[in-house]
Amino acid sequence: MTIVGVGLIGGSIGLALKSRGLADRVIGLGRDTERLDEAKRLGTIDEGTTELHDAVDQADIVVVCTPTDRIADDVRRLAAASRPEVLITDAGSTKRRIVDAVERDDRARRVFVGAHPLAGSERRGAAASRADLLDGRVCALTPTNRTPSDRFSRAESFWSAIGCRTVTLDPDAHDEALARTSHLPHVVAAALALSIPAEHLSLAAGAYRDGTRVAASDPDLWVAIFLENPEHLRSALEDFQETLDRFKDALQRGDRDELRSLWSDAKALRGRFDPPPRH
Amino acid sequence: MTIVGVGLIGGSIGLALKSRGLADRVIGLGRDTERLDEAKRLGTIDEGTTELHDAVDQADIVVVCTPTDRIADDVRRLAAASRPEVLITDAGSTKRRIVDAVERDDRARRVFVGAHPLAGSERRGAAASRADLLDGRVCALTPTNRTPSDRFSRAESFWSAIGCRTVTLDPDAHDEALARTSHLPHVVAAALALSIPAEHLSLAAGAYRDGTRVAASDPDLWVAIFLENPEHLRSALEDFQETLDRFKDALQRGDRDELRSLWSDAKALRGRFDPPPRH
Repeated sequence: MTIVGVGLIGGSIGLALKSRGLADRVIGLGRDTERLDEAKRLGTIDEGTTELHDAVDQADIVVVCTPTDRIADDVRRLAAASRPEVLITDAGSTKRRIVDAVERDDRARRVFVGAHPLAGSERRGAAASRADLLDGRVCALTPTNRTPSDRFSRAESFWSAIGCRTVTLDPDAHDEALARTSHLPHVVAAALALSIPAEHLSLAAGAYRDGTRVAASDPDLWVAIFLENPEHLRSALEDFQETLDRFKDALQRGDRDELRSLWSDAKALRGRFDPPPRH
Repeated sequence: MTIVGVGLIGGSIGLALKSRGLADRVIGLGRDTERLDEAKRLGTIDEGTTELHDAVDQADIVVVCTPTDRIADDVRRLAAASRPEVLITDAGSTKRRIVDAVERDDRARRVFVGAHPLAGSERRGAAASRADLLDGRVCALTPTNRTPSDRFSRAESFWSAIGCRTVTLDPDAHDEALARTSHLPHVVAAALALSIPAEHLSLAAGAYRDGTRVAASDPDLWVAIFLENPEHLRSALEDFQETLDRFKDALQRGDRDELRSLWSDAKALRGRFDPPPRH
């Protein structure tokens, strides 16, 4: 079992594997020896290395938990160095560009199943890892008609074994849905954080606290995600702005019924949402 | 001590008064005997009544915790029935229209100090009350040059005594600031809740959970607040949409630097915010 990228998600997968007794030996592949040492100290991996060959030449399963804009390259390099029996899966927040890029490489295509476990935190790094971060969370699998069915089954078993509820989606359908369910809320949180002049922050309370929580996330990580999914995200932003226009127009007209109807619809939808636990 | 409106805020003030030993007897004035009975059972008030005269003819301090669109009328009626020595203050989320309306009534003007304790919850009703809801929270006081200075001192003492940190603001400056720090985040939460088709809710996670939490709040309460502050709220919405436009334009250009700069500014501002505790 090899985990590539030993941050929050990679570390939490490592802890889940060990707490569930699912892997004899978890190897972490990273670029930074200090981070690898920290991950080993925290027990998220058994051994760390910066050498790709050492990390994967014996691996049955390789999980790529690097930032979205590095995943496709990593998968291709890892596939070239791995045994032909390997399963490579990933934890990237976007899927279409990654899957397209991987499928242009014959060797990588034969061993890869795209995945996205829906869990995260505004914190990052191995120190924030938790064995239960992925427990009960949805993991979207995005096979295509070129994905070998045995690799798909193994990927489904792997993500289920560490506690996820798997769902299967086309890569582009995944990105379209996630643009609304995750990427839009992140942009909105950042824009909301920017909406208060610093001198008025003391007059903000719970609505601002929660509405902007994810704006504390890492910029590089999220900018990479946005740039892997710009069309769907722009479309989600446009629809969102139209909804804001409806509020604004209703305010201008003093239209209580319309405001009430908008709010009640929002409350009803929110009421159908089953919120994940707060860690 | 009389509390008018025995819901979440009124109930929490009652509990704070009692846990701090600040009032011999807390009378609750309401319109619904069942709710008054519940408040008494929960211990947020000692006695409940639907009769305005019975509630205030002995009161030193009257705190009006009714919905924003009812406060000004309530203050005028309460002032007319109270002793001339009374202090009347309120807990409304908007201030300019309330203060303007109260000041058109000479008797009410002489006893009133507008206030807004910055605390709340998406839950409502006496059952959600907590003795510590207001503890350590900012309470904005909004006197004008027509507010008697002794009433202002007494209002400051009252809100401090139940645990608030008081700040003083002009009523319109209050509404302008709160449009951004509170009313905008509420509209944004509702619009965000509306941005996901029901069939994709299972693909939403923590960012949606937190970004939409306050959309579960009571529609009547929030529509009333929006309609008491429409100009400032529209202006806040327009600025917010301009920030979204900057994200959208940067996405269209694939402008990594601009996205990174927007995100980093948002993260820095969020980092200067001292979040209130989550109850």
